[in-house]
Amino acid sequence: MVIVMDVNATEEQILGITDLLSSLNLGYHISKGEERIVIGVIGDKKRLQDKPIEIMDGVEKVIPIVESYKLASRTFKPEPTIIQIDDIKIGDQNIVVMAGPCAVESREQLFESAIAVKNAGAQFLRGGAFKPRTSPYSFQGLEEEGLKMLFEAKQMTGLKIVTEVMDVHAIELVSKYADILQIGARNMQNFSLLKEIGKTKKPVLLKRGISATIEEWLNAAEYILSEGNKNVMLCERGIRTFETYTRNTLDLSAIPAIKKLSHLPVIVDPSHGTGLWKLVPSMAKASIAAGADGLIIEVHPDPKNALSDGAQSLTPGNFEILCKDLKIIANAVGRDFI
Amino acid sequence: MVIVMDVNATEEQILGITDLLSSLNLGYHISKGEERIVIGVIGDKKRLQDKPIEIMDGVEKVIPIVESYKLASRTFKPEPTIIQIDDIKIGDQNIVVMAGPCAVESREQLFESAIAVKNAGAQFLRGGAFKPRTSPYSFQGLEEEGLKMLFEAKQMTGLKIVTEVMDVHAIELVSKYADILQIGARNMQNFSLLKEIGKTKKPVLLKRGISATIEEWLNAAEYILSEGNKNVMLCERGIRTFETYTRNTLDLSAIPAIKKLSHLPVIVDPSHGTGLWKLVPSMAKASIAAGADGLIIEVHPDPKNALSDGAQSLTPGNFEILCKDLKIIANAVGRDFI
Amino acid sequence: MVIVMDVNATEEQILGITDLLSSLNLGYHISKGEERIVIGVIGDKKRLQDKPIEIMDGVEKVIPIVESYKLASRTFKPEPTIIQIDDIKIGDQNIVVMAGPCAVESREQLFESAIAVKNAGAQFLRGGAFKPRTSPYSFQGLEEEGLKMLFEAKQMTGLKIVTEVMDVHAIELVSKYADILQIGARNMQNFSLLKEIGKTKKPVLLKRGISATIEEWLNAAEYILSEGNKNVMLCERGIRTFETYTRNTLDLSAIPAIKKLSHLPVIVDPSHGTGLWKLVPSMAKASIAAGADGLIIEVHPDPKNALSDGAQSLTPGNFEILCKDLKIIANAVGRDFI
Amino acid sequence: MVIVMDVNATEEQILGITDLLSSLNLGYHISKGEERIVIGVIGDKKRLQDKPIEIMDGVEKVIPIVESYKLASRTFKPEPTIIQIDDIKIGDQNIVVMAGPCAVESREQLFESAIAVKNAGAQFLRGGAFKPRTSPYSFQGLEEEGLKMLFEAKQMTGLKIVTEVMDVHAIELVSKYADILQIGARNMQNFSLLKEIGKTKKPVLLKRGISATIEEWLNAAEYILSEGNKNVMLCERGIRTFETYTRNTLDLSAIPAIKKLSHLPVIVDPSHGTGLWKLVPSMAKASIAAGADGLIIEVHPDPKNALSDGAQSLTPGNFEILCKDLKIIANAVGRDFI
Repeated sequence: MVIVMDVNATEEQILGITDLLSSLNLGYHISKGEERIVIGVIGDKKRLQDKPIEIMDGVEKVIPIVESYKLASRTFKPEPTIIQIDDIKIGDQNIVVMAGPCAVESREQLFESAIAVKNAGAQFLRGGAFKPRTSPYSFQGLEEEGLKMLFEAKQMTGLKIVTEVMDVHAIELVSKYADILQIGARNMQNFSLLKEIGKTKKPVLLKRGISATIEEWLNAAEYILSEGNKNVMLCERGIRTFETYTRNTLDLSAIPAIKKLSHLPVIVDPSHGTGLWKLVPSMAKASIAAGADGLIIEVHPDPKNALSDGAQSLTPGNFEILCKDLKIIANAVGRDFI
Repeated sequence: MVIVMDVNATEEQILGITDLLSSLNLGYHISKGEERIVIGVIGDKKRLQDKPIEIMDGVEKVIPIVESYKLASRTFKPEPTIIQIDDIKIGDQNIVVMAGPCAVESREQLFESAIAVKNAGAQFLRGGAFKPRTSPYSFQGLEEEGLKMLFEAKQMTGLKIVTEVMDVHAIELVSKYADILQIGARNMQNFSLLKEIGKTKKPVLLKRGISATIEEWLNAAEYILSEGNKNVMLCERGIRTFETYTRNTLDLSAIPAIKKLSHLPVIVDPSHGTGLWKLVPSMAKASIAAGADGLIIEVHPDPKNALSDGAQSLTPGNFEILCKDLKIIANAVGRDFI
Repeated sequence: MVIVMDVNATEEQILGITDLLSSLNLGYHISKGEERIVIGVIGDKKRLQDKPIEIMDGVEKVIPIVESYKLASRTFKPEPTIIQIDDIKIGDQNIVVMAGPCAVESREQLFESAIAVKNAGAQFLRGGAFKPRTSPYSFQGLEEEGLKMLFEAKQMTGLKIVTEVMDVHAIELVSKYADILQIGARNMQNFSLLKEIGKTKKPVLLKRGISATIEEWLNAAEYILSEGNKNVMLCERGIRTFETYTRNTLDLSAIPAIKKLSHLPVIVDPSHGTGLWKLVPSMAKASIAAGADGLIIEVHPDPKNALSDGAQSLTPGNFEILCKDLKIIANAVGRDFI
Repeated sequence: MVIVMDVNATEEQILGITDLLSSLNLGYHISKGEERIVIGVIGDKKRLQDKPIEIMDGVEKVIPIVESYKLASRTFKPEPTIIQIDDIKIGDQNIVVMAGPCAVESREQLFESAIAVKNAGAQFLRGGAFKPRTSPYSFQGLEEEGLKMLFEAKQMTGLKIVTEVMDVHAIELVSKYADILQIGARNMQNFSLLKEIGKTKKPVLLKRGISATIEEWLNAAEYILSEGNKNVMLCERGIRTFETYTRNTLDLSAIPAIKKLSHLPVIVDPSHGTGLWKLVPSMAKASIAAGADGLIIEVHPDPKNALSDGAQSLTPGNFEILCKDLKIIANAVGRDFI
């Protein structure tokens, strides 16, 4: 941590800072520039974490030097995390594909989706049983009945299941049926939920909050990791910007950024990221080219009659074409696909 | 709802739309312009809410006409909502002030704050017992012990209590001690929490999500209202923008906007809204001038040693000066203060 | 400037940095922490301004300590700048009001506006003769003819004139007729224009760019100041955010922020800032309460037939009511009005 | 255009609207829903462009149906625009690469860059002679001397030249030396500049403004096209968001969006888009996978000593490796490279 003093800071004010640091067993260096005095703090910064140094007399600003997360950082763990689910490895040489409808609507809709995405090459079936919706009057999901349908689809096709868990109450229930617990963008900083999921060993797909910085996102992962669950993968799904043509702005630069800062696998959701099915294939291909470890894509047998997010869903036919293209791109960047 | 057809839409495609509308018992008008055909839908749009009309063949875009919330709208309820807590009315002629530390840290810190804000003119004591923090390594609050201290402070000073409830589990507990349940910005779309709080009758302070549009915020209020709890007040606390000088960008235009769109009271939090205590008095005064019904302000007896948000906390002395100024502004816009 | 080295930086890499600093006659302090080595640079940072230290071997990041502008900063000039235009002082005890139509459309429209705003208490007449418009097919202004009408209106009413100059070619022409040259938001970083206006002595109203940080805005002012023109006032006119209910998000916290960072006067434009005339009075009052030195407000005798920005224009009647309210608010914060 | 009336609009108010439309020779359809009355306007909307219908009595809001640009739209011109510069075609089957230093600094630096990027496979040399810089104290470019060096480099290597023109004065000068005129992000809405460049026939690289919507960007292109210059290519270079890890957020979804809305070629600038050279290769590959027609990349023989943007510049060695990877990706999406 670096403490920048006011241009007019007095000796007494500087002493106030250094006394505080000494009292916390922290060392320091004072650097007197022509325009500012800067104090570099040495030692374990955690002791200072909750001290509002920036309002001490004579202080102009405080600049953190070290990232605030630890277990999620590549500095702490240089080798990439590989999450194994039965015979599937996420974060390894292979690109994984998760696909299926936004919401589980009926046995027929789900099974038709499952068979289609399985045949096209997906390893995971996605589908929401609990749906977070902006309006209380929108379809809220089939709940446990939906989970059971997902499990049936798994038995029928061999696809693993990824589905959202929206609150602490539902963790146990969802864990019975799902292979990956999805934490939605709106819950990225639902800290109670993060901590409880951290106490399980279930693989977690942590979606980026709609206006979360990369640092906040990695801190959210840290909540899960610090409770003991190491099986965290990060899912870029678009951030909120001023642009309204797309539903969100898919931030693909987050892929190489996360790869640099962290060891966790990165999955991309081009369906929510754009909100427009016609843009999904381009962005799916771009994600793989940029280094993503996998994709999660909405596929619906009849998007026009979907109860949720039909506008961003691919038909099974379009998904099949996309998977063929993705294989070519994956190979072009030296990755395997299926 | 207005459906805009593609410039090249065929008769058959138009028929596809009108057949769907008819099958849902919805009426329509077709308006053939020089460049586009537009279909206006007549009837209860809820029947269309989950239909992705925008991907039907020949459709270019779909434009909603009516706001998606109902109980929260001024169209539905023209007169302002006044929330009564014992002898205090929120949303009425009087400006209310809620003040206190970000987090309850100790009996001494809390009582000193409580006495100071009471003397300066506040009617509510704020203070977090459960703290949502970006990093898992930051102070997370005193939990029930903190709630008990708040209750003691209430008995001592007569101040009402406003404090955050972070998850469904804690609603019952927090309700025992608090007069107003605060829903934090990160939980604005924690729909499980909104619904459960909607089942109580407790007054609610619903903070705006850090990147929530006004429409999403009113929909979040709708979740609470639609469960039967009418005592909702909205709290503007700054939105996330590209500007980093301030912690958030306090959107004061939300005050007159909410007053136009909704009947719910509006409270402003200039402490989180700016993150800088030196900016708090200016923005508190501006809030009242713009028509806010109240303020929630961080006050700490010793900001330099605060365990949370010290940089944005006023000292009791500065808060007292501010209250005097606020009274003058309140009177200048025809409102009462204290 | 503080240079943070990689956690694994070698002695050689550190030497690479210190050798560079020495070669530029800059001093330094090395601070070895437990997790990072930090190098504080001493001396005139301008010598380093264009050196990409951050990509030197072993460097993790570089953190500037001193603001990048100088003449615009309050550190450099602690006393507030007061701009005198004949008998009117801007940035002093008095609140100034600039009002009039978005665009000069006709002699009648302009004169009717001028008389109305004069009677209500404005000291300046605003009105565009050159109009920057998003679409090339929108009304682009009356150009020199419009300028002449503004000058006639000045002679008739005694109002001073503020009007936009869009390119270098037009500076001389506009200066003949205007008392204040307005630089529009889209031109805030039109550096050729800033430099040329810096060579005149004309007072300048520098609008904030639609996505300009406060620091970039002050740097734009620095371009003008560094050419010798000290008569710069800053105009907050709303920034672009994700919120679409308002045309822009008026950032009133920029008022106290600028007052802290700079000595230049601050004017607020609530008309562009909100885009909705019903929100203008609330935000105008809030601006004065927050410490603004003046306002620039769109007033049109017949907003429904305005050729530009009618939706955000007040009628003369509403403007007159607003001015009475503003006087009360101005007095409440210890300022004079008219 | 669709006009939505207030829920309480009177017959008289509706008549006010329809009378206005009739007086402009526009037709209309009235659609009376349960909650709102909607008026669909028929005919040439240009006649309404500058009428603020939204403030007429009884009007709630006005919704445009047709995009505001015409010549830039794919509706107007379905086949893609191909820009031919000597033997190079932009917007065709081949991917073009423009590369070179941010700023022309010296003959040696430029020639070394030019030879390197030529050998690696670039067809265009980029390099700024006039540099827009946030601070007036940063290096501002070599101006005409720099242009002459670019021209020499062209004669030496056969590379075509792309370089920025910052104001109207410089168009003629820059056109003497350049093959493509670049309009920088800060000047995207410098309408005087757009119009003047529209009067030339020179190919133009129009960078997206830092906070420009896709619609505003296409309208900026419309300014150039409507003056008669059809040789416009659009350059995505990142937009401003809340994320600060990257310099900007590169919006790759703009590539398929532009391809859908417009016929103009799309070039991507991953150097400014990320600000971090380590992220450039990933984003360059992603751009091609997403359908871009070309790239513009910063390459500097000695990034550590670059006078501008060194942190985002590739070395010649890294650029050469990237070009090999790009060729593979280009082929994977069915495009040619070199």
